[in-house]
Amino acid sequence: MIVNAKRGLRFILQDSFKPLSILFIWDMLVVICYRYYQISWFGQSELPIALIGSVLVLFMNFRNNTAYNRWWEARSHWGLITNNCRSFSRQCTTILKGHPDLTRAIAGYAYVLAYHLRGKDALLNSNVKRVLPIHIQNYIKGLRNQPNGVLFQIGLMVTQEVDKKHIDGAVHAQIDRILSDIANAQGALERIKNTPLSIQFSTLPYFLTEITCVILPFSMVETLGWFTPLGSALVGFLFMALYKIGSDLQNPFDDSPHALPMLTMTRSLEIDLLEQIGDPTGSPIAPVNGIQW
Amino acid sequence: MIVNAKRGLRFILQDSFKPLSILFIWDMLVVICYRYYQISWFGQSELPIALIGSVLVLFMNFRNNTAYNRWWEARSHWGLITNNCRSFSRQCTTILKGHPDLTRAIAGYAYVLAYHLRGKDALLNSNVKRVLPIHIQNYIKGLRNQPNGVLFQIGLMVTQEVDKKHIDGAVHAQIDRILSDIANAQGALERIKNTPLSIQFSTLPYFLTEITCVILPFSMVETLGWFTPLGSALVGFLFMALYKIGSDLQNPFDDSPHALPMLTMTRSLEIDLLEQIGDPTGSPIAPVNGIQW
Amino acid sequence: MIVNAKRGLRFILQDSFKPLSILFIWDMLVVICYRYYQISWFGQSELPIALIGSVLVLFMNFRNNTAYNRWWEARSHWGLITNNCRSFSRQCTTILKGHPDLTRAIAGYAYVLAYHLRGKDALLNSNVKRVLPIHIQNYIKGLRNQPNGVLFQIGLMVTQEVDKKHIDGAVHAQIDRILSDIANAQGALERIKNTPLSIQFSTLPYFLTEITCVILPFSMVETLGWFTPLGSALVGFLFMALYKIGSDLQNPFDDSPHALPMLTMTRSLEIDLLEQIGDPTGSPIAPVNGIQW
Amino acid sequence: MIVNAKRGLRFILQDSFKPLSILFIWDMLVVICYRYYQISWFGQSELPIALIGSVLVLFMNFRNNTAYNRWWEARSHWGLITNNCRSFSRQCTTILKGHPDLTRAIAGYAYVLAYHLRGKDALLNSNVKRVLPIHIQNYIKGLRNQPNGVLFQIGLMVTQEVDKKHIDGAVHAQIDRILSDIANAQGALERIKNTPLSIQFSTLPYFLTEITCVILPFSMVETLGWFTPLGSALVGFLFMALYKIGSDLQNPFDDSPHALPMLTMTRSLEIDLLEQIGDPTGSPIAPVNGIQW
Amino acid sequence: MIVNAKRGLRFILQDSFKPLSILFIWDMLVVICYRYYQISWFGQSELPIALIGSVLVLFMNFRNNTAYNRWWEARSHWGLITNNCRSFSRQCTTILKGHPDLTRAIAGYAYVLAYHLRGKDALLNSNVKRVLPIHIQNYIKGLRNQPNGVLFQIGLMVTQEVDKKHIDGAVHAQIDRILSDIANAQGALERIKNTPLSIQFSTLPYFLTEITCVILPFSMVETLGWFTPLGSALVGFLFMALYKIGSDLQNPFDDSPHALPMLTMTRSLEIDLLEQIGDPTGSPIAPVNGIQW
Repeated sequence: MIVNAKRGLRFILQDSFKPLSILFIWDMLVVICYRYYQISWFGQSELPIALIGSVLVLFMNFRNNTAYNRWWEARSHWGLITNNCRSFSRQCTTILKGHPDLTRAIAGYAYVLAYHLRGKDALLNSNVKRVLPIHIQNYIKGLRNQPNGVLFQIGLMVTQEVDKKHIDGAVHAQIDRILSDIANAQGALERIKNTPLSIQFSTLPYFLTEITCVILPFSMVETLGWFTPLGSALVGFLFMALYKIGSDLQNPFDDSPHALPMLTMTRSLEIDLLEQIGDPTGSPIAPVNGIQW
Repeated sequence: MIVNAKRGLRFILQDSFKPLSILFIWDMLVVICYRYYQISWFGQSELPIALIGSVLVLFMNFRNNTAYNRWWEARSHWGLITNNCRSFSRQCTTILKGHPDLTRAIAGYAYVLAYHLRGKDALLNSNVKRVLPIHIQNYIKGLRNQPNGVLFQIGLMVTQEVDKKHIDGAVHAQIDRILSDIANAQGALERIKNTPLSIQFSTLPYFLTEITCVILPFSMVETLGWFTPLGSALVGFLFMALYKIGSDLQNPFDDSPHALPMLTMTRSLEIDLLEQIGDPTGSPIAPVNGIQW
Repeated sequence: MIVNAKRGLRFILQDSFKPLSILFIWDMLVVICYRYYQISWFGQSELPIALIGSVLVLFMNFRNNTAYNRWWEARSHWGLITNNCRSFSRQCTTILKGHPDLTRAIAGYAYVLAYHLRGKDALLNSNVKRVLPIHIQNYIKGLRNQPNGVLFQIGLMVTQEVDKKHIDGAVHAQIDRILSDIANAQGALERIKNTPLSIQFSTLPYFLTEITCVILPFSMVETLGWFTPLGSALVGFLFMALYKIGSDLQNPFDDSPHALPMLTMTRSLEIDLLEQIGDPTGSPIAPVNGIQW
Repeated sequence: MIVNAKRGLRFILQDSFKPLSILFIWDMLVVICYRYYQISWFGQSELPIALIGSVLVLFMNFRNNTAYNRWWEARSHWGLITNNCRSFSRQCTTILKGHPDLTRAIAGYAYVLAYHLRGKDALLNSNVKRVLPIHIQNYIKGLRNQPNGVLFQIGLMVTQEVDKKHIDGAVHAQIDRILSDIANAQGALERIKNTPLSIQFSTLPYFLTEITCVILPFSMVETLGWFTPLGSALVGFLFMALYKIGSDLQNPFDDSPHALPMLTMTRSLEIDLLEQIGDPTGSPIAPVNGIQW
Repeated sequence: MIVNAKRGLRFILQDSFKPLSILFIWDMLVVICYRYYQISWFGQSELPIALIGSVLVLFMNFRNNTAYNRWWEARSHWGLITNNCRSFSRQCTTILKGHPDLTRAIAGYAYVLAYHLRGKDALLNSNVKRVLPIHIQNYIKGLRNQPNGVLFQIGLMVTQEVDKKHIDGAVHAQIDRILSDIANAQGALERIKNTPLSIQFSTLPYFLTEITCVILPFSMVETLGWFTPLGSALVGFLFMALYKIGSDLQNPFDDSPHALPMLTMTRSLEIDLLEQIGDPTGSPIAPVNGIQW
């Protein structure tokens, strides 16, 4: 996630540079053909470009809305992971009268989930090795859904603890509710990951933006003449910027600068949890070049 | 669900080919009549096509928004089925101290629900036969609402288990809450299936798109001349693409490539559940030609 | 609710026929006055009809969005009634170890609610008489809010049963939670019924559509001439269709073909419930001429 | 809340009469200056009025959307007050084995909340005096937040009752959950009341509408001539109507005809509650001149 | 938060004065170059300014929508803090039979959270020192997440109280649920604070607004002549106002006049809570110059 505004603008401009250059060259070609070689049918100022433009913009706006909502939904569900892990850890100390291994396990769960969503094997990672209890590490080896396995083991540990300490069933039920809430948030994150944005919203806008940019100069060359590349570039940049917004946001769990900063967030959570049981914690992760990862 | 972007674009273009060809021929006819046979009243450049176009686009955008929200709502509620089945299975092992038949039953429930939503008899299916306990298969024979019957039997099994093992009422209540949450998600899926998109959003857009495409060339032939088919095809393609987006998404439980990949999702869930009790599981279902079913 | 697409389109066209005919005659009058009687000030092609049109369309789109959301919110809350009645019935058999009268009472509750929302006296109805236990029928006689009375009696029956069978308080609380969820869904349905769509969204659009249709031909007659009725009818039909969408959907509990098919849905629920206790049930209600009631 | 459609339209037209008259006079002045005194620079037909208009309309649509959502959110949260008060009353009779004073107290709570939201002292009101138990009336004297005080006293009464009758903790917890749900709904209503619509949405639209109406005739006088007032009034009426929709809805707890009919709703609730314990109730409040208060 | 409408309008106009002046001077330069120095290519009336304008407006509308929803989401979650703190305090007196220190602790929690969200050290503040119990103040010294630490200590105090007074587990679970709800609301507020509005929505609109304002006079100078600055200023003001709406709302926890009035709200909550246990409270905070802080 880009947290530095100036850097962000530079990003957008850099990404737009190449396609805008190509568009500019194409615009020049059209103007030269029309003005210099006098190919008169290159001037088609009556093409319904305003209608096409507004159709495209409305469609892209809707697409971007959808992509942004996906992104924000992912962020919100990750927030639920954070909140419920904290609540679970509070319950371990208060209701279960202290059980540091459970707090470590839930901190490890967050890391395992983060790597799972990025498509990586959590067990290769030093963060997971550091905080997740060994017997859970052994259990999840080879499982298809590792975070689900961690949650399952945590449920077992809670039940054993409840039996050992004769905890009341009602407060046990309340702890189990938190585990179910975590399972719901995890499921929602997996849903967003496994259901890519509908094909109509991911490929069609690109295709339509390209076609529109190609016909833009034909519609302007008659009236704008040598200023065609300017007008065309302006409109083209708007369309490209709109297109990029949606495509940047559509995959919130990628390794891209626009994705959710899952490592930064997990580390913050780890510190909140392990501080309470007096364990050593990793240090917070600072943004690199204005980007949180 | 189409998961391969390039394939998806090809799909859209293929589907648009036939109607675009017809539109092209119609456009040519209009141009020939106007230019060659000089039927002057074929040129009606003052038809308020921009107004009609923007009305249609705004309406279609709203319709597509609604259709997409239905689709995403269906996906989210299926996600709730997944999450709660996992939580239920966790509870069976932790709170109920292990009861593999209940885990098998809930994995079977997901299959029964998937076939029910696709309008098929679940009992004919090999997946259901493989995982659903026999006494439940017998019970749901002939029931109008088979998944509801499975859930009812699971509730009975839980109560018997609770009585047998003297489980505390509060944690029993927590398990029952999960069953009610599953019932809520099932009800929401049935609601979406049984309430088709309002007739105004399913038939009217098609009718309006057709009319608009028919009058398009009349409004362009005067100014664009022999380029009319080009301009008309561009605008027509935009309208058709917008129309298709909504109609593809409106029935998320169909057997179409745009529907929810319920078999793929149910198999994933089955693996997550049965792995925990050491049962053999089916293998994950890979996409076929870029499409998940 | 109209479930047959072709029938639905016919409905829309039929409803539009009369106003379109009137608009056509009015258009012809304007053209005749302008062309034949040469009343030159009838041609006002500079009227900002595009601006007026787009304002009206944006307003109507927003109105329709609101109306559709009301309709869908009503459908969703009815869905909650269905789901929670099923869960309640499951609890009666599992947690309360069977109590067929409670299942009958909750099936009756759904009928009473359906008639209450349509503004009818539930006690006159054969469905209610058939399934609702007699002592509840007697209790709700003369009550202002009959479904609320049924729910109250069900709560009493549950408490008596809990006391008699020494059911644990925690699972009693869970049953009571379902009753509160039903009360919430009922309250939401009453809210939608008792709060009509804001007056600004119900009357203003009609008024504005009429005014716009009246001035349409004046803005077109100069440029379209004898084709004015065609262009005006097209635009007019679009506006009327947009208007109708919202007004059809705004009252989801009416006796209209566009309202929620409450009888069909309640019968489905009744079958799901009574099948479980082996009672005779009514048969499912088939759509009549493509319409569910 | 206006419940009579015809009356509602009359309301809108009446409210628009004065500003439309002023606009009409202004339009006439502009036409006279341009046509009669030949002040040629009064005709500025190239002012980008279509662009300004569509910007304004999109902004207003968004503003109205926001205002409507506030209004509907307020209505929904009041609905939650109603539902939960009913559920609480059901619990008093079933779980607590009857306690009429608690039912009276919760009916009184709704009145106290209604007057609190309208900014009035609840204790001066005859409805509150009639239903709210005396000891609660004494307690809330001088409190800053009276409904919160009533809820606090109800919580105390419930706990005493639970202790006296040895009610199980789990069902006590369920009753307490309902009180917390009521507290949440009350908090949401206070939030809407205490957070006016952002200043950008309440004052800016008025200012922009006025400016636009002032420049409207300049942009039309050249082409429409003596018909300018007609065209200008049409467009001006649309803008004013859009403006009014939002400003009518923005304060749902005012004493205006567009606000929520809190007295009518509270009385309905009172009847539902007191009927169950056999108390005399006030009669339902009929709309006055098509308006519910 | 600005609560005085007139002041709010003045704010908007003041903020717009400087950029509008610059735009005005730029407009004059363009007109002088075109009219006085006759640089003919300064007149580019065919630039597709209407298309660019409507693209920009649609994009900005979407951005503002997003920013407003963030703001309102933050306000709603702060509302949940308020409601649950009240419910917690009610439970302390009713279920826990009175424990004034817990009420003080939860009032202190709200202050600590408010300062935490504004990025300040809560322990330096007189409000926190006044209400938060000393042992909690000592505990949170040096913690990275101070409100989380307070909540943790409150959880401990509740458990000790429950053990000492032999409170039933089910009602203990209900109190713990409220603490988890507070943790969820806190997490949501931190999420909004730590996830700035996407870079695409914060920097791109500013950049695009500037570019559009720069080219505005070129597109108008040919037709509007010396009135160019007027038309350009009108359109420019609209764009700037739209831009400002979003940027004012995007950071709801800043120290700006447009941010949430967290001190005012926390003081209100403190009064509601401490009044119930008879503690002295601070006085409500009045708006300063029409602004709540």
